Amino acid sequence: MIIFYSDNVTPSMLTLTPEESAHCVRVLRHRVGDDICVVDGRGNMYECRLADADPKAATAAISRVHNDWNSRPYHLVVAVCPTKNGDRMEWFVEKAVELGVDEIVPLLAERSERRQFRKERLEKIALSAAKQSLKAQLPRIRDAVTLPEFLEKGGAGLKMIACCYDGPDYPRRSIVGALSAYLASCPPDSAPVYDSNAESGRREPSADSSCPPSPKKEITILIGPEGDFSEVELAAALRAGYIPVHLGPSRLRTETAALMGVSAVYSAFID
Amino acid sequence: MIIFYSDNVTPSMLTLTPEESAHCVRVLRHRVGDDICVVDGRGNMYECRLADADPKAATAAISRVHNDWNSRPYHLVVAVCPTKNGDRMEWFVEKAVELGVDEIVPLLAERSERRQFRKERLEKIALSAAKQSLKAQLPRIRDAVTLPEFLEKGGAGLKMIACCYDGPDYPRRSIVGALSAYLASCPPDSAPVYDSNAESGRREPSADSSCPPSPKKEITILIGPEGDFSEVELAAALRAGYIPVHLGPSRLRTETAALMGVSAVYSAFID
Repeated sequence: MIIFYSDNVTPSMLTLTPEESAHCVRVLRHRVGDDICVVDGRGNMYECRLADADPKAATAAISRVHNDWNSRPYHLVVAVCPTKNGDRMEWFVEKAVELGVDEIVPLLAERSERRQFRKERLEKIALSAAKQSLKAQLPRIRDAVTLPEFLEKGGAGLKMIACCYDGPDYPRRSIVGALSAYLASCPPDSAPVYDSNAESGRREPSADSSCPPSPKKEITILIGPEGDFSEVELAAALRAGYIPVHLGPSRLRTETAALMGVSAVYSAFID
Repeated sequence: MIIFYSDNVTPSMLTLTPEESAHCVRVLRHRVGDDICVVDGRGNMYECRLADADPKAATAAISRVHNDWNSRPYHLVVAVCPTKNGDRMEWFVEKAVELGVDEIVPLLAERSERRQFRKERLEKIALSAAKQSLKAQLPRIRDAVTLPEFLEKGGAGLKMIACCYDGPDYPRRSIVGALSAYLASCPPDSAPVYDSNAESGRREPSADSSCPPSPKKEITILIGPEGDFSEVELAAALRAGYIPVHLGPSRLRTETAALMGVSAVYSAFID
């Protein structure tokens, strides 16, 4: 199944971006009348019929709309310090999007060595990974912020800070334990889990299919730089309601730690 | 903490490989008398004192040996079809080793497009990742085998084949469910979990620290090529005692699916 992207959708028609148009018409040789699937990056998937095979602005007639297509039962924000090697950050973005992430926030911490990142490049990688892994919702790549700036925004739900040492008067627990405790604290009928249809990604309430779909679980993970967060930063995060977690016994690179966090959340919602 | 590697260890002395010697003496400027930590790739870590700062064959006197250092409570074998893009396989090896894997077997399936891989390159990446993530046991990169050849070897413990459709008369369960059911089936005192010391990676029996360490849990995961295993291959794996599992709702690239498997196992053993 191949997915195209459009940022120009009307109720009846949509136009592919120049890049997507070229891929659809020049590379994949689609012709007028072909059925194609298009996502808008805002959660909707459109079954369409190609109406104009313009390699710079292909247009298609919308025959069916799928709202909230392949959506997740959670909203995951990962604030991670950019890696010294830019490729590693790009790799993380691709893999995180494949598994499922909603917002990636480049975080500037005391010990951050790298303070720049190529946002447009990351957005391009995120779009490609979202299409490849059949996501209709395009994750947001945020502008870089300092930890204090990020903490000021507050945030709801389960807020975790990954660190390599226990916090002041606050021992770490594993991210796995923190996630299961959080989900166990939710009312049974408000903890949807994925069904086993790995193709469609449909999700249904865990037990009683008659219970209403629940609001998405809000989950935030902070991943520090090589050298970890400072004690001052950890204390500030704890004051802001974050709980300190560890990612298991392995010493992980920054991008691996961040992906381990995304994977732990993804796993926690698999039935 | 920096770890060096030696494949030449006597009871009292060890010699670093030429590459490690250069890194120790030329790059990190270690001098005679410096204390260094060395692993042998067979599970042992040696506290040593540099005796000869030869940049081609540095030798060190062993002051203390740590057997089974930072070991895992499981033995994980991942048989994965090489990706078309060699970089993706190399990336998988690095990340799998960081999280923890014992054997990586390049698998040749019916729909495998790529049938070659650079074993030496993968071994070099595995060594580097093992040192970086403080592993004393070096994972094995096996020679490529066909699926029938691999299945003939039998194997013990939990054997899973990841696939995108249910097996004949055998519905898939999630890898998370399969792992928890397997661990739940082990006697309580034989299911060790990591403690929360993410630095040392020490592990202790889950509940009663007086109970003896248990044998490692044997876990095998088969990851197919782009296009998945064929029905014939899946049926053969089921006959060989593998259970079909899914990796959740996202459509994952081969290397992402393989790492998701490694991460799910890693998470299942975190307390």
